[in-house]
Amino acid sequence: MSESLKKHIQKLIAINDDDCTGILSYFTMMKATKKEDLLTAGKICKSNFFVSKGCLRLFFVNDKGVEETIQFALEHWWLSDYTSFSAQKPAEFFIQAVEKSEIMVLSFSAQEEMLRRFPQMERYFRLVHQRAHAAFQFRIKFLYTLSREQLYRDFARRYPEFVQRIPQYLLASFLGLTPEYLSEIRSRKIS
Amino acid sequence: MSESLKKHIQKLIAINDDDCTGILSYFTMMKATKKEDLLTAGKICKSNFFVSKGCLRLFFVNDKGVEETIQFALEHWWLSDYTSFSAQKPAEFFIQAVEKSEIMVLSFSAQEEMLRRFPQMERYFRLVHQRAHAAFQFRIKFLYTLSREQLYRDFARRYPEFVQRIPQYLLASFLGLTPEYLSEIRSRKIS
Repeated sequence: MSESLKKHIQKLIAINDDDCTGILSYFTMMKATKKEDLLTAGKICKSNFFVSKGCLRLFFVNDKGVEETIQFALEHWWLSDYTSFSAQKPAEFFIQAVEKSEIMVLSFSAQEEMLRRFPQMERYFRLVHQRAHAAFQFRIKFLYTLSREQLYRDFARRYPEFVQRIPQYLLASFLGLTPEYLSEIRSRKIS
Repeated sequence: MSESLKKHIQKLIAINDDDCTGILSYFTMMKATKKEDLLTAGKICKSNFFVSKGCLRLFFVNDKGVEETIQFALEHWWLSDYTSFSAQKPAEFFIQAVEKSEIMVLSFSAQEEMLRRFPQMERYFRLVHQRAHAAFQFRIKFLYTLSREQLYRDFARRYPEFVQRIPQYLLASFLGLTPEYLSEIRSRKIS
């Protein structure tokens, strides 16, 4: 489980095996079952999650009681409610395992201590968040320009495996579609 | 101009005045006129911009030739096309000064060299991007849940000065409204 995190760190920054071992000692490993809750809105988000295997999602519950998915995290992605995590104040989002998952969990205090001892990890997390920042710039562009059907087609083209893998009602909520409309789109042939 | 950046750095990380002077030497200062272009889509985004005074925006031009604003950067915000900047490949976005602005400009090569010499700045940028990541999680939530009118009311409540300051057609494009509809909303009393 820790091997995939080690590989990811060594892909982004230059770091030796000994330091990596020290860094990994700040994490706890966790196996989550499908639909297991890792964060509930109203509670403080105490952890930053790295997905070794499986998939997590960040969502909220709208006024009508419907869950709306903001982000998915597949293998090698980080996920947290960063407003709650950074300030250690109550979260507005939920985090849940979409499927059976293996997760490397870094608590807020462990992260702070680890960054003090291994400041080179600041670069790693800078790159992780800079990539997320870049991805969100495009996400907003797509939300502004593509029709709902185009959003799905574009997503399916870029992440074909993902579309096969996750439940369709979750994909629908992520793309802002009703499950019925998504099913209709999928059954249509592309002209 | 550099004083506001120095203050911002010292607010986020512990750093002495001498190191700050060394860090600031990697920046160039720039005065931009209203509507001056700092990045054009198709060109490589060579710089990361810190706004000391004024306001920048990141936008793209849609299929109909209409500009759509993705992000604004007011005083003490950073802005760049982070996909283009990180990989030094052609940009898909434009960056323009919304009003007369004073900007601290950090080129890609200067940033890399500065981070090698002052690795504590990795923490500063990690915090900058982590905040942006957190802000985008909420931005998506608002886009999914609020009506266009609520988006404007929420925005005006949180950033009253900003709404007074920037041209209404830009605010409309940022909120995904037509300028006419925004004007209609503004003229309505809140019940």
